[in-house]
Amino acid sequence: MPSPRPRRVAVFGAGGGIGAALVAQLISRDDVGEVFALSRTAPPVPADTRGKRVPLAFDLTDEASIAAAAARIAAPLDLCIIATGILTLPDGTGPEKGARQIDPAAMARVFALNTIGPALIAKHLLPLLPRDRPSVFAALSARVGSIGDNRMGGWHSYRASKAALNMLVRNFAIELGRTHRLAICVGLHPGTVDTGLSAPFQRGVPAEQLFTPELSAAHLLRVIDGLTPADSGGCFAWDGARIEP
Amino acid sequence: MPSPRPRRVAVFGAGGGIGAALVAQLISRDDVGEVFALSRTAPPVPADTRGKRVPLAFDLTDEASIAAAAARIAAPLDLCIIATGILTLPDGTGPEKGARQIDPAAMARVFALNTIGPALIAKHLLPLLPRDRPSVFAALSARVGSIGDNRMGGWHSYRASKAALNMLVRNFAIELGRTHRLAICVGLHPGTVDTGLSAPFQRGVPAEQLFTPELSAAHLLRVIDGLTPADSGGCFAWDGARIEP
Repeated sequence: MPSPRPRRVAVFGAGGGIGAALVAQLISRDDVGEVFALSRTAPPVPADTRGKRVPLAFDLTDEASIAAAAARIAAPLDLCIIATGILTLPDGTGPEKGARQIDPAAMARVFALNTIGPALIAKHLLPLLPRDRPSVFAALSARVGSIGDNRMGGWHSYRASKAALNMLVRNFAIELGRTHRLAICVGLHPGTVDTGLSAPFQRGVPAEQLFTPELSAAHLLRVIDGLTPADSGGCFAWDGARIEP
Repeated sequence: MPSPRPRRVAVFGAGGGIGAALVAQLISRDDVGEVFALSRTAPPVPADTRGKRVPLAFDLTDEASIAAAAARIAAPLDLCIIATGILTLPDGTGPEKGARQIDPAAMARVFALNTIGPALIAKHLLPLLPRDRPSVFAALSARVGSIGDNRMGGWHSYRASKAALNMLVRNFAIELGRTHRLAICVGLHPGTVDTGLSAPFQRGVPAEQLFTPELSAAHLLRVIDGLTPADSGGCFAWDGARIEP
């Protein structure tokens, strides 16, 4: 039997804590041949002794940049991970504690980055998945994006943007399933990870529940490796447990 | 025992098919004393032989207009129904059939009208609900906003905007529950109703499943009348059945 061709993978948000760790771990894998590392400002090609990393620039709010990245990546793409996401806005505005704090421009910005941006990545990257072999399209979601799991309230924009993303993941899974029998589209909850996103909210998180980006990335890649087409459309936590919508 | 004071109700989207029917039926009820009928362009006060209708103007994308309406309505407000919603954009752009049709500006517009607008209404109207007696805050959602119920895919922006709205409804219910033991916050699925929103999509809908706005409004008011605080945070269909998230 011929050995399978090396897998081609893309990580959007490679400048973030989880995204960078995903890129590093994917590069180290023997079954991976090429890793497209996409970030807002493509870094200069870093030291990559194995020559697999291809840095590319993209902007979640600029569809042309995503289309250009897709053209550069080209088919076949075996794994696409969206590791972008925003909780606190660049101006320091934190997530809402109550309805009184809802601001329409802030909420629109969170939808643009957490929902519409990933939708645009799907629009341009899903067509690159191969029809004849397994592939995975995964977007970082969050347990707080589960409506059924919501007991605490708050974080209105973030929760709503992730619930909307979970709906889109389900939609993309349905679409993919019509032509790509072996393709899988899922949302992933990385746990609470020690990154800039969670930094203001780590107080009260037990140390053993606060993952390093490296540990979270390892968890997520193990979950991805264990997915089957029957899982497509769902949302899964770092430990592989399915999260209700 | 003193008879209860007449209820004060508000309908946002009173210019739409379902909204207008809700206003008409609420006016006819003996337990209702005042009906604030809110639409984009407040109509001249129409013939209302019972003197209950108060037309007000508001714009979902103009928070100041919603705040002004709330100030005019004032507490106590016993029932607030949001009967707004968009499926086809004003320029004729219909809902997406597949990911390829996703347009970021169109999706942002759908979130602005179907999710952020209702969030702003909640921000300014929830504080008007009384603490000491039953009240209901209801937003028209849709069965296609259920992630778990999604078998067909498509309609990406609309589905995502309603899933996001369902999350916010859950959030508002949790917040309300902390101070308003008798208040109820729900999403409602009106069925397929013969209005402008559904007009392009009625082919294939059996006649007995295509409701007049009047019938749908009657269904929804019956559902609202039957709600209990234990239902708060959920989404309910025109027949009272709970819809999964």
